[in-house]
Amino acid sequence: MSATKMNGAESLVRTLIDGGIEVCFTNPGTSEMHFCAALDRVPGLRCVLGLFEGVVTGAADGYGRMRDFPSATLLHTGPGLGNGLANLHNARKARSPVVNIVGEHATYHIRHDAPLTSDIEGIAAPVSDWVKTSRNAEEVSRDGAQAIAEARKTPGRIATLILPADTAWNEASSGATVPSVPNPETVNSNALDECVRVLRSGEPVMLLLGNKGLRAGALEWAGRIAKHSGAVLHSESSAARTERGAGRVGVTRIPYVVDQALEVTRPFKHLILAGAKAPVAFFAYPGKPSLLMPEECRIHKLVGPEHDIEDGLRQLAEAVGAKNIEPERQELRRPEPIRGALTRDAIGASIGNLLPENAVVCDESITAGRNFHTFTSGCPPHDWLYGTGGAIGRVLPEATGAAVACPDRKILCLSGDGSAMYTLQSLWTQAREKLDVTTVIFANRSYAILHGELLNVGAVPGLNTRTMFDLENPSLDWVQMANGMGVEAAMADTAETFHRALEKGLNSKGPFLIEARI
Amino acid sequence: MSATKMNGAESLVRTLIDGGIEVCFTNPGTSEMHFCAALDRVPGLRCVLGLFEGVVTGAADGYGRMRDFPSATLLHTGPGLGNGLANLHNARKARSPVVNIVGEHATYHIRHDAPLTSDIEGIAAPVSDWVKTSRNAEEVSRDGAQAIAEARKTPGRIATLILPADTAWNEASSGATVPSVPNPETVNSNALDECVRVLRSGEPVMLLLGNKGLRAGALEWAGRIAKHSGAVLHSESSAARTERGAGRVGVTRIPYVVDQALEVTRPFKHLILAGAKAPVAFFAYPGKPSLLMPEECRIHKLVGPEHDIEDGLRQLAEAVGAKNIEPERQELRRPEPIRGALTRDAIGASIGNLLPENAVVCDESITAGRNFHTFTSGCPPHDWLYGTGGAIGRVLPEATGAAVACPDRKILCLSGDGSAMYTLQSLWTQAREKLDVTTVIFANRSYAILHGELLNVGAVPGLNTRTMFDLENPSLDWVQMANGMGVEAAMADTAETFHRALEKGLNSKGPFLIEARI
Repeated sequence: MSATKMNGAESLVRTLIDGGIEVCFTNPGTSEMHFCAALDRVPGLRCVLGLFEGVVTGAADGYGRMRDFPSATLLHTGPGLGNGLANLHNARKARSPVVNIVGEHATYHIRHDAPLTSDIEGIAAPVSDWVKTSRNAEEVSRDGAQAIAEARKTPGRIATLILPADTAWNEASSGATVPSVPNPETVNSNALDECVRVLRSGEPVMLLLGNKGLRAGALEWAGRIAKHSGAVLHSESSAARTERGAGRVGVTRIPYVVDQALEVTRPFKHLILAGAKAPVAFFAYPGKPSLLMPEECRIHKLVGPEHDIEDGLRQLAEAVGAKNIEPERQELRRPEPIRGALTRDAIGASIGNLLPENAVVCDESITAGRNFHTFTSGCPPHDWLYGTGGAIGRVLPEATGAAVACPDRKILCLSGDGSAMYTLQSLWTQAREKLDVTTVIFANRSYAILHGELLNVGAVPGLNTRTMFDLENPSLDWVQMANGMGVEAAMADTAETFHRALEKGLNSKGPFLIEARI
Repeated sequence: MSATKMNGAESLVRTLIDGGIEVCFTNPGTSEMHFCAALDRVPGLRCVLGLFEGVVTGAADGYGRMRDFPSATLLHTGPGLGNGLANLHNARKARSPVVNIVGEHATYHIRHDAPLTSDIEGIAAPVSDWVKTSRNAEEVSRDGAQAIAEARKTPGRIATLILPADTAWNEASSGATVPSVPNPETVNSNALDECVRVLRSGEPVMLLLGNKGLRAGALEWAGRIAKHSGAVLHSESSAARTERGAGRVGVTRIPYVVDQALEVTRPFKHLILAGAKAPVAFFAYPGKPSLLMPEECRIHKLVGPEHDIEDGLRQLAEAVGAKNIEPERQELRRPEPIRGALTRDAIGASIGNLLPENAVVCDESITAGRNFHTFTSGCPPHDWLYGTGGAIGRVLPEATGAAVACPDRKILCLSGDGSAMYTLQSLWTQAREKLDVTTVIFANRSYAILHGELLNVGAVPGLNTRTMFDLENPSLDWVQMANGMGVEAAMADTAETFHRALEKGLNSKGPFLIEARI
């Protein structure tokens, strides 16, 4: 290769770097070897290895949520992509921007049906907003530029570029420039007028916020509207990232449990949507509705995730004359620690007592954490990341990616033990990259949520359901597993030992894990 | 529900049991709750929990390989299936019979796009030979019966039945009977005549065996043909299960490395295929061929995996007059242990020295194990399972499933450290089910194969490739990780300590892990 020539892989790496991609979460294989070599030759992309692709894609989700900008993933053919599928599902439902690069056999090799040959486009399609297989080395850089642009479209999308090995190793001329990314849509004037009328109707209104409507700026405008009109603010359940805490406009989520959600929505005649969709049950249950709102409640969409949500709320605030209203803000208020048994409330109180300013909380605590929001709403400003796609095994990878995205912020990762086992390999990446993540594992030693669901269907646990729902026999020892991956860890089985362990984790740098035996 | 009535879930469980399904490898969620309850109510299916779906589907592959009969998996919606995708890819390439049951939202709930809503059929299609979504509770049992029949078609197929929650909870009338499964095809007489002519031509012939052509009975016939005609026997590289050892007709695999494979196939003018396909490079490389045989070599397909392979070989043996020939058989011969450093050869020698009769070896040793076959060919009769689909993370689950399938046989699981990290949750299932698996982890602390591949493309490791290919910093402690999941473990860093550890594992019951520091 002469100095002015490069191969397709190098043209793609240059394109990614020129396009602003800083990090590549990766687990490569032989098909990606020329791309790997190019990552050495062209400096500028930080490679972060995950020892399983679910870690890789979940980290890209966490990174995208925190940066509002894509990272790249590097995945090995269809099975590597398959391993990352669940967390790409979560990322897509979170509207996180991600650029996947998936290695494929050389174009001429595919027809021979080698062991790793698979329908990569078919595997990618259900979790991607955009999929393309590069046809030759000359087109790779343009395809890569297009992938970045697609990922960056509002609100954030999953773009998957499939890279046959020969398009990486053949000669190419140069990198490509990322096409301009369209601005988000602005609020439709009819929608705006309709929402103004609703707010002035005197009837009870819920303003349901989602997506970037849960960032501090948007919440300010929503708070003004609420204060002025009497509308009640709520957050969608599947909130990808909420900026909350003292000084900010607070908002509570629609509950997960169907009957509780129906209770919350019952008083309202109108539902204004700003970045959210109308609340839907996580699962269907016999005899219960799918839509979690009164039948007579009318839905008015102000803006969706594809819009500039903050601007839409600002326009609505101005239109109803709330521009200069001072919204209700959350006061600074931390709970005192609770002593004695290690209850869910004791854990919540310790988190509320200790959470550092500017922390990022990645929450997959499932049953254990349903009340943590009440203990933490008055903490100094912080971000809270919830599940969006319902696929468990999200949060250890997400915390890993959030820590890469925000090296100066403390990441608090809250996970059920069942969920954490899905992608425990994340701990090794946290150790290697010295990421500032404190992980709390809620070791209830069961898929506790399923025990509740079994009761819901009127059954009592028998041999097979106990086998399937309990994580006992043997018990998992999280301290040993974390140590085995190079992460310091502690076990806590009282409120006091938990509080001290959490204090240690939050007040020191680097990864730390607490097995909370609840 | 009256005594004569049942719901769809119960009708499906009854159908599975009546259809001969004995084991359900499972990781369920809320959508599958009625199915779970039915598994309690109707006794007869053994549920084996995996703490990640890659364990579940890989175990089903191992079970199917050993039983030639399907188990069921129970997976939670699209993401749960996605987590199991890579090992379903492997299972499909192994032609293992598997019946997947994938829970889905209630039919009327899907349109609401709840968090877990996904294109399950789309996710299933690339790794399934048959996919169906049940439409209502009445049809569930018939669909389940069809799924079993589809999975059982020769040589073994992946059947995926998607079970919307309301088809499980609504009322159904009864279970269904599995349709008759067609017999495998018999050898085509023209193909037979052609192969007879080739064997009598006096030109050099390779008889390439694959799939059930690698079982002892088929190998007997192949050995007679070889002895009589001078044809040379080889096995496909991706051999799902080979019955080998003392007293059997031995067969060596086509090597993984392209140049070595070309060297093996170079002398031959004819290639007769019996259950295998013509050898193909695992990956393409610039300037190297995809098909690993001389251009002038002619291919003759005697039988494919869809045929009765043993019968095809028998007919060929009879047609060439080799029916009563005594084939070359492998002599009983064990190597002596090697002392000193823990080399690959020392490990191979210890395995060859100690492997128990009737053992099942699940091999994903990748670079470390390329010579193990020479050390073990003269061991007492045993089975050897290789990778078929190239997706790593196969073998700990496979060993788990093989142990469930064959409780009276010792399972020896050989895994690279990189591969083992993919599905290490398998160890917990082995501990819980007290499975008789000895696992050897080759702790070379790198994706060693990728270092070789990087050299192949003429690059030297830089910062990013070292980051991506090395598993150092921190090192993984397999003893701690195994202990954390309830599995006894030992570290070995000399030939002597390895030998003693292997002896301990193979001579005691239950799971045991050895971290072999090579």
